Amino acid sequence: MYKAPVEEIAFTLKQVAGMAKALEAGQMGDLSEDLVDAILEEAGRFAADEIAPLSEAGDRQGAKLTEAGVVLPEGWADLYRRWAEGGWNSLALSQDFGGQGLPHMLNVAALEMWNGGSMGFALGPVLTMGAAEALDAHGSDALKQRYLTKMISGEWMATMNLTEPSAGSDLGGLRTRAERNQDGSYRIFGQKIYITWGDHDATDNIVHLVLARLPDAPAGSRGISLFLVPKFLINDDGSLGARNDLHCHSLEHKLGIHGSPTCTMIYGDGKFGDMPGAIGYLIGEENKGLACMFTMMNNARLAVGMQGVAIAEAATQKALAYAQERRQGKAPGWTEATMSPIVEHPDVARMLVTMKALTQGARAICYSCAHAIDMSHHLDGDEARHFAERGALLTPIAKSFATDIGVEVASLGIQVHGGMGYIEETGAARLLRDARIAPIYEGTNGIQAIDLVTRKLPLSGGGQVRGFIGELKAIAVAVDASNRPDFGDTATRLLTAIKDLEEATEWLLAKLGEGAMTEALSGATPYQRLFGLTLTGSYLAKAALADGEDKRAALARFAAENLLAETAALKSTVTGGAASLAAARAVLA
Amino acid sequence: MYKAPVEEIAFTLKQVAGMAKALEAGQMGDLSEDLVDAILEEAGRFAADEIAPLSEAGDRQGAKLTEAGVVLPEGWADLYRRWAEGGWNSLALSQDFGGQGLPHMLNVAALEMWNGGSMGFALGPVLTMGAAEALDAHGSDALKQRYLTKMISGEWMATMNLTEPSAGSDLGGLRTRAERNQDGSYRIFGQKIYITWGDHDATDNIVHLVLARLPDAPAGSRGISLFLVPKFLINDDGSLGARNDLHCHSLEHKLGIHGSPTCTMIYGDGKFGDMPGAIGYLIGEENKGLACMFTMMNNARLAVGMQGVAIAEAATQKALAYAQERRQGKAPGWTEATMSPIVEHPDVARMLVTMKALTQGARAICYSCAHAIDMSHHLDGDEARHFAERGALLTPIAKSFATDIGVEVASLGIQVHGGMGYIEETGAARLLRDARIAPIYEGTNGIQAIDLVTRKLPLSGGGQVRGFIGELKAIAVAVDASNRPDFGDTATRLLTAIKDLEEATEWLLAKLGEGAMTEALSGATPYQRLFGLTLTGSYLAKAALADGEDKRAALARFAAENLLAETAALKSTVTGGAASLAAARAVLA
Repeated sequence: MYKAPVEEIAFTLKQVAGMAKALEAGQMGDLSEDLVDAILEEAGRFAADEIAPLSEAGDRQGAKLTEAGVVLPEGWADLYRRWAEGGWNSLALSQDFGGQGLPHMLNVAALEMWNGGSMGFALGPVLTMGAAEALDAHGSDALKQRYLTKMISGEWMATMNLTEPSAGSDLGGLRTRAERNQDGSYRIFGQKIYITWGDHDATDNIVHLVLARLPDAPAGSRGISLFLVPKFLINDDGSLGARNDLHCHSLEHKLGIHGSPTCTMIYGDGKFGDMPGAIGYLIGEENKGLACMFTMMNNARLAVGMQGVAIAEAATQKALAYAQERRQGKAPGWTEATMSPIVEHPDVARMLVTMKALTQGARAICYSCAHAIDMSHHLDGDEARHFAERGALLTPIAKSFATDIGVEVASLGIQVHGGMGYIEETGAARLLRDARIAPIYEGTNGIQAIDLVTRKLPLSGGGQVRGFIGELKAIAVAVDASNRPDFGDTATRLLTAIKDLEEATEWLLAKLGEGAMTEALSGATPYQRLFGLTLTGSYLAKAALADGEDKRAALARFAAENLLAETAALKSTVTGGAASLAAARAVLA
Repeated sequence: MYKAPVEEIAFTLKQVAGMAKALEAGQMGDLSEDLVDAILEEAGRFAADEIAPLSEAGDRQGAKLTEAGVVLPEGWADLYRRWAEGGWNSLALSQDFGGQGLPHMLNVAALEMWNGGSMGFALGPVLTMGAAEALDAHGSDALKQRYLTKMISGEWMATMNLTEPSAGSDLGGLRTRAERNQDGSYRIFGQKIYITWGDHDATDNIVHLVLARLPDAPAGSRGISLFLVPKFLINDDGSLGARNDLHCHSLEHKLGIHGSPTCTMIYGDGKFGDMPGAIGYLIGEENKGLACMFTMMNNARLAVGMQGVAIAEAATQKALAYAQERRQGKAPGWTEATMSPIVEHPDVARMLVTMKALTQGARAICYSCAHAIDMSHHLDGDEARHFAERGALLTPIAKSFATDIGVEVASLGIQVHGGMGYIEETGAARLLRDARIAPIYEGTNGIQAIDLVTRKLPLSGGGQVRGFIGELKAIAVAVDASNRPDFGDTATRLLTAIKDLEEATEWLLAKLGEGAMTEALSGATPYQRLFGLTLTGSYLAKAALADGEDKRAALARFAAENLLAETAALKSTVTGGAASLAAARAVLA
């Protein structure tokens, strides 16, 4: 059973991702270290004691579509309400509407734990938080007064409605339409697919944020507007009114996250109300919907990264516990009469240490991203811009690297279990099934790679990424200067990896400058991996420097001398692989 | 829907794996190239038209345990009988008992197609073939007369009963016991788990091969005997007699291959018959059971490798078809007004070309292994020994590399599909679910790596592997000598990879010589991957040299300039990763 790694989370937040310094500098508002510890402790308890026990049954039962709407697995609706009553939804949301306004870092750490307990469960709240942020940033005061307080308290949940059958990664093809009503509201007509928690029985109202196109809107993505469309309309006194003309038409039958309802939503087919059309309210300006949605998508991307970290952590815990218990064969050097625990076999140890290193690396990347976002809000002027850029740079890496390693670590976790790993009751297989969606949704990892290369590398004319690489070099130099023998060859290997990253980065910036987009994009995914691995090595080393404990240095050394060996190959693929890819496309014809 | 890649299979068999030369030299018996083509064509038709259409429903329904025993998914029992009546079971089995005695190469190619149609379905026959080979090699004439003919024709299916709850990778802990009867038969008592196709309704009898321990047997793996234990006893006239005292107690609830029943089998609990104990007949000598079982396991390992190839092929076909159809966004250089098919996006193209290269590489490795096994049977003396060693060397690589890339390619296949990949109806997710067992069963890929390093590298004092590496170098030299510009940097990259393999091999041989087992085994899995990747690059180049077609050279070049970039990292992990792994074990305590 999942145990929240509270101590490791606290250490990473404070010592690796910058929270300790931020607390000291008073950059985290009223937050004290004691309060951080208390919140993490309590979140860990809730995740392990309340969420995790309902995870397996939730997967087995799945969400169900009934006449009355979607029903969550047994106990989940109640679990959600207890979770919201605990104030967990409002942690990092606006104090103006009842939120606690705490740093994102803290919320991201809590998200890791909710997802560690159950990814399918934690997914619902992620959407609500994102929707609340978008409404807070772009909604009118009247709309916020009416909806935001309850979305922040968690009394109502919320959804994001983007995708349609022919509008996925490219929303330009969106067809859902909005018509203006006389009273300033709109009527929405259309079908949306893959709507997470699109309907359920956890809250008595659900607030849908829906992208749609006005009749006179420009074609493509410049003609999309964002609307707030509640499941139940709200009376002037704030009470629930009539059912709005929208419903869940069907649920997807998915590989994993079975407890999380993935809905096809129908808007405006006349099933409810006097006249067809779901009543909606404009958020922000007409035809500016995509910009509003991006507010919510960036934070959602980091939240999805946390799912990768959480699954990796849960898979590592489960596999390690099994490997310490299960006995088969005799490992070299094992002198006892009994069979050895399989953790003693070098091959099994290699899998488990790899799982640990990737998990802790991905965690540090994600928390560092959250730190940058927090600093961008707290600071001003150039400092704020610097951290906003840092958060923007780290977001695609956090999302893609953490979700890729989520799948990788969950798959290794199955392997450590041997035959038991393939049996559903063990739970290792479920972690892989759950993990596999994360590299896809909120922008596939391929889309993240395009974003990283074409939008994030050019920030400040390449200055942002260059400055970041400089910071990584400083870590390698500090490792070298420490003269600690337990670091082995870490400093040299790390520096080599950072130079690989640097060369690949400069090559990409040059290609972008020449407008050689095909060449640049041919290596975007290997580049993203190169970045994530180098950060993993760097952050593990930073953790070891902060701690002085032998174990951390050993893990950093393992990463540097094993995992980072891959960076040369990744660099060479980025800078030298485009021509061969172009030629090999012939085999796809 | 899966289409059997008959042309590619035939090309790989003949031009890459050595069948063309063997046919020419008369080393394949009466077999002619025309007959090979006809058999492949017909197998491809059966796999695509008969097996594949029942695959998805078989997964959805799964095998079910009823009062009367296990029932296969709808249509599967009949499908099996049509398949056996087609003579497919007996393809490579002994002519002395009604088999066709055709080369293993042909059977392995056919296995790829059955598994491409449905891995869960094809798994049953794999077990029957293995059991027939073990019985043929080790059974008494009386036992063969009674059982083998029907096992070869496929009228009866057969199983392998090895695993028990505390005896998995290490069979030394086996507890199932056998007691001697007066008449020379035995009574078997115990529980076996993970028994594939342990019960079903496809044949009216099932022949179980069961490992058990005699009362006076030595402890550990030297005290294990192999027994033939039929579901129904056979009367002297060959008709079915009494039900034997064994049954399927329960079915496992697995991640994939749902149509394939995975049984817990109970022997000798008195459920059937007058007195408890399942009647069994000794195969080979008492206490020599493990050796008999290994006969069957080696071929089964290659057969499992074919599952990896088959899943990779099916996943590649499905993803490519989707990517050619699905349109999103505009790829760089796309000038039409419509959105581009996603195959035009460099990132998607990279995934698909990688899938193609890995699939074709793994196929060539497996077929080359089958070729070596065929030659070891056909030739004599030193030549036979050479090829037996080659087959032994290639078997763990074929099993592990092909099953690892099966998972990898199936996972990429999901990614290419985006959100659709996560929906079960698409079928991409099922391929990953099915594929995930193959790196585990028939010896986990970690066990294969131990076998490769500790038993296969030392063959002929290292002469076998060194000779093989020399053959690979000759391919690289031939690429260089071809002076074909479409090979790009293939020759250099390939030679570098082969040198990485060579250095890692010599390092391992040295460590084995010193008895430094922990060091050697710390890098066994990366070494196995290094070997598989280098073979992939070499065989793709060999294929391109044989063919002269541009596409093959482009694919070989892509592999050499992209995938083989990883070999340096793998070599460095093998030769330099042990110390850091040893130190990092502290994090697993």
